[in-house]
Amino acid sequence: MGFNKDTVRQVIFEADTPAGKAFDVWLIVLILLSVGAVMLDSVDSIHERWGTWLYAAEWMFTIIFTIEYGLRLWCIQNTWLYARSFYGIVDLLGILPTYISLWVAGSQYFLVVRVLRVLRVFRILRMVRYVGEAELISQALLASRRKITVFVSSVLALVVIFGSLMYLVEGQHNPGFGSIPDSIYWAVTTMTTVGYGDITPSTPLGRGLSTIIMIMGYGIIAVPTGIVTLELNEANRRRANTRTCSACSAEGHSREATYCWRCGQHLYRTEETGDGASDNPP
Amino acid sequence: MGFNKDTVRQVIFEADTPAGKAFDVWLIVLILLSVGAVMLDSVDSIHERWGTWLYAAEWMFTIIFTIEYGLRLWCIQNTWLYARSFYGIVDLLGILPTYISLWVAGSQYFLVVRVLRVLRVFRILRMVRYVGEAELISQALLASRRKITVFVSSVLALVVIFGSLMYLVEGQHNPGFGSIPDSIYWAVTTMTTVGYGDITPSTPLGRGLSTIIMIMGYGIIAVPTGIVTLELNEANRRRANTRTCSACSAEGHSREATYCWRCGQHLYRTEETGDGASDNPP
Amino acid sequence: MGFNKDTVRQVIFEADTPAGKAFDVWLIVLILLSVGAVMLDSVDSIHERWGTWLYAAEWMFTIIFTIEYGLRLWCIQNTWLYARSFYGIVDLLGILPTYISLWVAGSQYFLVVRVLRVLRVFRILRMVRYVGEAELISQALLASRRKITVFVSSVLALVVIFGSLMYLVEGQHNPGFGSIPDSIYWAVTTMTTVGYGDITPSTPLGRGLSTIIMIMGYGIIAVPTGIVTLELNEANRRRANTRTCSACSAEGHSREATYCWRCGQHLYRTEETGDGASDNPP
Amino acid sequence: MGFNKDTVRQVIFEADTPAGKAFDVWLIVLILLSVGAVMLDSVDSIHERWGTWLYAAEWMFTIIFTIEYGLRLWCIQNTWLYARSFYGIVDLLGILPTYISLWVAGSQYFLVVRVLRVLRVFRILRMVRYVGEAELISQALLASRRKITVFVSSVLALVVIFGSLMYLVEGQHNPGFGSIPDSIYWAVTTMTTVGYGDITPSTPLGRGLSTIIMIMGYGIIAVPTGIVTLELNEANRRRANTRTCSACSAEGHSREATYCWRCGQHLYRTEETGDGASDNPP
Repeated sequence: MGFNKDTVRQVIFEADTPAGKAFDVWLIVLILLSVGAVMLDSVDSIHERWGTWLYAAEWMFTIIFTIEYGLRLWCIQNTWLYARSFYGIVDLLGILPTYISLWVAGSQYFLVVRVLRVLRVFRILRMVRYVGEAELISQALLASRRKITVFVSSVLALVVIFGSLMYLVEGQHNPGFGSIPDSIYWAVTTMTTVGYGDITPSTPLGRGLSTIIMIMGYGIIAVPTGIVTLELNEANRRRANTRTCSACSAEGHSREATYCWRCGQHLYRTEETGDGASDNPP
Repeated sequence: MGFNKDTVRQVIFEADTPAGKAFDVWLIVLILLSVGAVMLDSVDSIHERWGTWLYAAEWMFTIIFTIEYGLRLWCIQNTWLYARSFYGIVDLLGILPTYISLWVAGSQYFLVVRVLRVLRVFRILRMVRYVGEAELISQALLASRRKITVFVSSVLALVVIFGSLMYLVEGQHNPGFGSIPDSIYWAVTTMTTVGYGDITPSTPLGRGLSTIIMIMGYGIIAVPTGIVTLELNEANRRRANTRTCSACSAEGHSREATYCWRCGQHLYRTEETGDGASDNPP
Repeated sequence: MGFNKDTVRQVIFEADTPAGKAFDVWLIVLILLSVGAVMLDSVDSIHERWGTWLYAAEWMFTIIFTIEYGLRLWCIQNTWLYARSFYGIVDLLGILPTYISLWVAGSQYFLVVRVLRVLRVFRILRMVRYVGEAELISQALLASRRKITVFVSSVLALVVIFGSLMYLVEGQHNPGFGSIPDSIYWAVTTMTTVGYGDITPSTPLGRGLSTIIMIMGYGIIAVPTGIVTLELNEANRRRANTRTCSACSAEGHSREATYCWRCGQHLYRTEETGDGASDNPP
Repeated sequence: MGFNKDTVRQVIFEADTPAGKAFDVWLIVLILLSVGAVMLDSVDSIHERWGTWLYAAEWMFTIIFTIEYGLRLWCIQNTWLYARSFYGIVDLLGILPTYISLWVAGSQYFLVVRVLRVLRVFRILRMVRYVGEAELISQALLASRRKITVFVSSVLALVVIFGSLMYLVEGQHNPGFGSIPDSIYWAVTTMTTVGYGDITPSTPLGRGLSTIIMIMGYGIIAVPTGIVTLELNEANRRRANTRTCSACSAEGHSREATYCWRCGQHLYRTEETGDGASDNPP
C-alpha cells in the first residue's frame, strides 16, 4: 500500500478497510484523551501538580491533529468544499485554540469543541441505523423550527413582562429582584421549571404571582413537547409509508407489509422498507 | 407620494411597499431599543451614571410612539375598531406609562409591554408560514382550554390539600412552613417540578410526604403535555387534509376518503400527498 | 313553594331551577370564604389580630354546613347511598374537623378538604362540556393505571438503589447524605427534576453519579408523558369514532361526518356525535 | 406432598398452588423487611440504639435467603441457566454483600439490590395484565434505544461545550464554576431542568448565557418525550391489532385492512373493536 493520495484518503476519510477503521478508532481515543486533558487541566489541584505534563500533552495532541488536518486538506479532491463543511470547520476549531493561546491566555479551553469530532463515531462504527435515527430526529426538529420560533418568541415576551412585574412587586424588599434583567433571569429559571432558588420571592404578593407563573410554565412546557411529538410522528409516518399499491393506490402500508391491505395486490419491496423493517425481526 | 390618509395607512399598516417595510423594520428597532432602555434604567449602577440620558431617551421614544399612535388613529377607516383591537390596546399601553409616571413613580416600568408590539414582526417579514404555525398552536391551545381548566382546577385543589397537610406535619419545626399560604406556595413549586429549595421539608414524615407529592407531580405533568399533543395533532390533521369537496367545499377529509363526509359527493384524488410534503421543499 | 322533601331536594341537589342555581352559587362562595378563613388563620400575624373573629367565622360556617348536610341526608331518597358517595364523604369531612378540634387542637386545618366540594362547580354552571372533558381525562388516567403502576414501581426500585449508592459514595463527607432514607429523598428530588438543592453532591464521584441519574431521570420523565398521551388519544378516538357505516361497516368517521368516507352512504346522527361535534362550530 | 425436587420447584418457582403463592407472599414480606432493616441501620440514631438487633436481623435474613437460593439451584432442572438469568444474578447479589461485609466494611449496603427481587411481585399476584403493560413499556424503550443513544450523545456534547463556555465566563469570579468538570455538572443540572442551585451564575454575561441554555434545555426535553410517545404508540398499535391472518397467522393488521399484508389472504372481520376495549371490563 503506497503513500499516495488515494490510499491516504481511504484511510482517513473512510472506514471500510481495516486500516481506515483502526485509524478512526485511534482518532476517537485521542480526541477523548485530549478533551479529558483540557478538562482536568482546569481543576486547580491537578493543574498545580500535573500542569507541565498536561501542557505538553496538549501540544502533542494539537500537533498530531494539525498533521491530520493537513493530510485531510491534501488528500481530498475538493479541498475548499471540505474546509467549509461542518466537520472541516470543527477540525480546524479543534486545533486553532492551542496556537491562539500563545497570545491569548485561556483560549485553550475552546479546545473542548473537539468533542464534536467524536460525533463521527456514528459513521465509523458503520452505524447506518444510528445515522437514520439521527436524521429522523433532525428532520423532526427542522420541520418544527417555525413552530418552535413562534413559541420561543412568545415565551420571551412573557418572560420580559413577568420579569418586570416581579421587579415592581418584589424589587424594593428583595435584593434578588434588584433590576429588571435579574428579574427576567429569575422568570426564565421559573418558567423552564429549572428553579435554582438563588432568587426567590419573599412577599406574599410576589409568591402569589410566582404561583401563577409556575402553573403557566407548567402548561407551556407542554407545547414544545407536543410540537416535537407531532413532527417526529409525521417524519416517521412519511418514512414508513412511501409505498402506494400499484393496483388501488392505497397508502398507509405498515413497514412490514407485502400485500396491499385494501385490495390484496402484491407490493414490491424497496430498499428503504427493508432497512426500516429489519428493526423488528420476524 | 402625497401625504394623504391612504398613503400614510399603507406605510403604517401594511408592509407590501418598500416604504411600509422600512417603516416596520425601523419601528421594531425603536421598540427593542426603548424596552432595552427601560430594562437598563432599572439597574442601579447604570441608573446612577446614565439615568438622565435614559430618562431623555424614554421621553423621546414615547413622543415618537405617541405621534405614531396618533397617525394610526387618524388614517385608519374605523378608528374605534382599531382602538379596541389587541394591537390597538397594546399600542396605547406602550405610551401611557411614561405620562402616568409624572404622577405615579415607578409606573414607567410598565413600558415593557411594548415588547408585545414586536410580535408584529411575524407579519412584517411576510412570514405567512409563521403566522400559520402560530395559528395552529393557538388553535390547539384554544381547543384544549376546557381540558386545561379542568386540569388546573384539580391541581389547585390538590395543592391546597397537600399544602395544608405539610403545614400540619412540618409547621411546628420548620419556619418555611409557617402558614398554610406558604405551604401552598411550596406545594406549587414542588408539583410543577420547579423546586426552588427556599422551603424544604426537614422532618422524616415531611420528607416522606414530599416524596409522594413529587412522584404524583411527575405523573401529573404528563397530563397537560398529553392534552396539548392531542389537540396539536387534531389541529394539524384538520389543516393537512385540505382537499375540499367540489360540491359543498367541506374540508377535513381523512386521507383514505373517497366520498365527502358532509354531502356524500365523490372526491377526486388530487396530489394531496404532495401538498402535505410542501413543508419541505424538494 | 312549600317546604317539603321534594322542593328542598330540588334546590339542594339540582341546579335547574333559579332557586337551585342561586343555592349552589352561594354555597360555593361560602366554601371558598371558609377555606380562605382557615388559610388566613394559620398566618401568625393575622391570627393574633383577627383570631377571635376567624374562630367565630369558622363555627358559623361549620354550623351552616352542618345544617346543609342534615338537609341533604333528610331530603334524599336513598340516604345511605348519598352518605357513602364521594361527595357525601367530602361533605361530612368538611364539617367534622371543627367539632374534633374541641378535643384535638390543630385538627381544624383539615377543613381545607372543603375545597373539594368546589369541584361541584362544574356541575352547577351546567358545564356539561367540562364534565365531558373531565371524564375523558379520568378515563385516560384510569386506562393507564396499570402502566403507571408498573412505571412507578420501577422508579421506586431505581430510587432505592441509586439512593443507597449515593449514601455509600457521599455519606462520609456530606451530612446531607447521612442516611439511606435521606439519600433516597435526594434521589426522588433529582429523578423527578424537582431539584430543591437542600442536599447536593460535593465529591467528584458523587457529582459524576448524579449526572448519570439526572440524564436517566430526563429520559424516564418521558415515559408517563408517553403513556398518558397514548391513552388520551385512545379515549378521544374511541369517543369520536363509535359509528360504523351501515352499508360497508367502515369505521373512523370524523366527528363531523354525515356520509361514509368509503361508500358515500348516509350516516345517522346520534346524540353523542352532536355533543362532541359542536366543539367546532360550522 | 413429599419433599422431592418437583414439589419444591413448584412451591418456589411457581405461584399456581396455594403453597406456592403463600411462599411468594412471605418471600416478598421478608425482602421488604430486610431492605427496610438495611435502610434503618444507616440512620445514626437508630444504629446506636438498635444496631445489634439490626445486625442480627440482617444475618438472619441473609441465612434464609441463602437457603432459598440453594434450594432454587438444587431443584431447578437447568441450574446454570437459572444462575445466569437476571433474577438468578439478583438473587445472588442479594446475599453476597453480607458475607463480603465480614472483610469489607460498608458493603452490606449493597443489600438494597434485594429490592429488585420485589419486581417478581407482578408475577406472583398473577398480574398477567401488569406483565403485559411492563412488556409494552420495555418494548417501546427498547425500540427507541437507538434514538435515545443519538439524543444522549448530542446532549453530552452540548453539555461539555456549554460547561466549558460557562467556565470561561464565570470561572474567575465564581468558585462554583472553578473547573470545567464542575461547570459540566452545572450544565447537566440546568439542561435537565433539575436546577439544584448549589452552583449559579452571578455575572450578567453568565446569566445571559444560562438563559439561553435553559431555553434550549426546555426545547430539548421535548425530544425524548416525543421519541417514547412515538414508540409506545407503535408498540400499542402492533399489540392492539391482534387479528391474525387465518392463512399465515401474521399480526399487526391495521384496522381498515381487508387483506393480510403478508400473504394477501382475505381477512374475516371479527369483533376486533370489542377486543380493543377489553382493557376496560364491561
